Amino acid sequence: MFRTRLPLRFAHCDPAGIAYYPRYFELCDAAIEDWTAEVLGVSRREMHFAQGLGMPTVTLSAEFAIPSRLGDLLDFTVRITRVGRSSVDLKVDIDCGDERRFCVRYTQVLTDLARGKSHPWPPELLERLTKDLP
Amino acid sequence: MFRTRLPLRFAHCDPAGIAYYPRYFELCDAAIEDWTAEVLGVSRREMHFAQGLGMPTVTLSAEFAIPSRLGDLLDFTVRITRVGRSSVDLKVDIDCGDERRFCVRYTQVLTDLARGKSHPWPPELLERLTKDLP
Amino acid sequence: MFRTRLPLRFAHCDPAGIAYYPRYFELCDAAIEDWTAEVLGVSRREMHFAQGLGMPTVTLSAEFAIPSRLGDLLDFTVRITRVGRSSVDLKVDIDCGDERRFCVRYTQVLTDLARGKSHPWPPELLERLTKDLP
Amino acid sequence: MFRTRLPLRFAHCDPAGIAYYPRYFELCDAAIEDWTAEVLGVSRREMHFAQGLGMPTVTLSAEFAIPSRLGDLLDFTVRITRVGRSSVDLKVDIDCGDERRFCVRYTQVLTDLARGKSHPWPPELLERLTKDLP
Repeated sequence: MFRTRLPLRFAHCDPAGIAYYPRYFELCDAAIEDWTAEVLGVSRREMHFAQGLGMPTVTLSAEFAIPSRLGDLLDFTVRITRVGRSSVDLKVDIDCGDERRFCVRYTQVLTDLARGKSHPWPPELLERLTKDLP
Repeated sequence: MFRTRLPLRFAHCDPAGIAYYPRYFELCDAAIEDWTAEVLGVSRREMHFAQGLGMPTVTLSAEFAIPSRLGDLLDFTVRITRVGRSSVDLKVDIDCGDERRFCVRYTQVLTDLARGKSHPWPPELLERLTKDLP
Repeated sequence: MFRTRLPLRFAHCDPAGIAYYPRYFELCDAAIEDWTAEVLGVSRREMHFAQGLGMPTVTLSAEFAIPSRLGDLLDFTVRITRVGRSSVDLKVDIDCGDERRFCVRYTQVLTDLARGKSHPWPPELLERLTKDLP
Repeated sequence: MFRTRLPLRFAHCDPAGIAYYPRYFELCDAAIEDWTAEVLGVSRREMHFAQGLGMPTVTLSAEFAIPSRLGDLLDFTVRITRVGRSSVDLKVDIDCGDERRFCVRYTQVLTDLARGKSHPWPPELLERLTKDLP
């Protein structure tokens, strides 16, 4: 389990003054970026530019329970729910204080960017990923 | 069924040179914006500012099949799959030429923005929504 | 002189219901993307991925005269005001109907992306650029 | 002088792997958002929704010296350079380590959002603004 806090900024809000959902996904992606660095032990910069690997999303589903407002401090909790040969399922829960605002479930696949094909987890990443499994 | 074509621009692409998924949702939202004007017969400007109504997304799920690249012309097809008292389910299929790139299923709810509560479809909108139902 | 029309969408508006200026720059960049294809005769996709060239902005200045609102149809007029060995100055005027909304002046430099250095205009681009000069 | 640090994320980078300038303005705006809360003592949420005031940008100019890359930690330094009856000039310098990456100069105007007109600085804000003047 990994947790990070990100503010809901002016840039993320729509004319109704609440979070615009495409920006929510930018924020989730920022949380997963931090998760990658912390839990996998590799920055996206290194992954992309030194290793030529990426983690594109193949499926996602989201439930938006309660709208968020400008200035809300959002807590993103990232959990690994399944690990495959080259894929990982993540569940991201987003809370403000005690309130569940929304959650997103992802399947992402480690991908060789030059070949555009899935790439099996290297052993050291697999170990880090499965250590966290329930 | 409503169809609109939008280009994948530089602004939508990530360091791997392919579409960044939060921008995909901006593009889908643009397609739904055009669908609203054409199929519901009301612009988002009128809906939000004159009528005080919005159509926030309560759930969505997406499958990303094949990545899109800078300059691709994407065809967004919006279909109504279910109409409730104040909600609507939409399926958006996104193709480039003959290739299915991704699809998104939405549940959106007509909402009174001031009260933050769902609002039943007015009869003229309900008629337009159900006319299109399979 | 090149002109293109782009709508101000929900995604571009802030909690005050007017255009959020970072999104204005995305729209200007979309107009310059279309200008590149039409006036220079090369798509950004070809420029970036086949030729390894880009046109980063080195300076810009903007004046925001009158706010734009959701649903406004904005006309972007792109004019070349100066051409250097590897640079170009552009003036982009943005109108809605008869009203000038904002304008942006750019200096952009043709750049070899791999070397990170400026690259002189190839003769065929130089000819296209200077043909349009006042 | 106010300083805040923000990471350059995947979401901010273009197909060349460097910062895309419209996203730079989102980051600058985030820095000014934090400056507003800290230096003016009022959050944007309170300013917009409780006080009905905004600070739209009327002019800006930017110089982009050295590109920033995915993962760079950027330091945003916000300085007040002029205070008018209802306006303020800000200079934002953005550094990575010892390197100046870019700078932006802004003129922003305190605005009554309902009336769409400039609004003189309230005495307590004026005092906070001028305290910081060189």
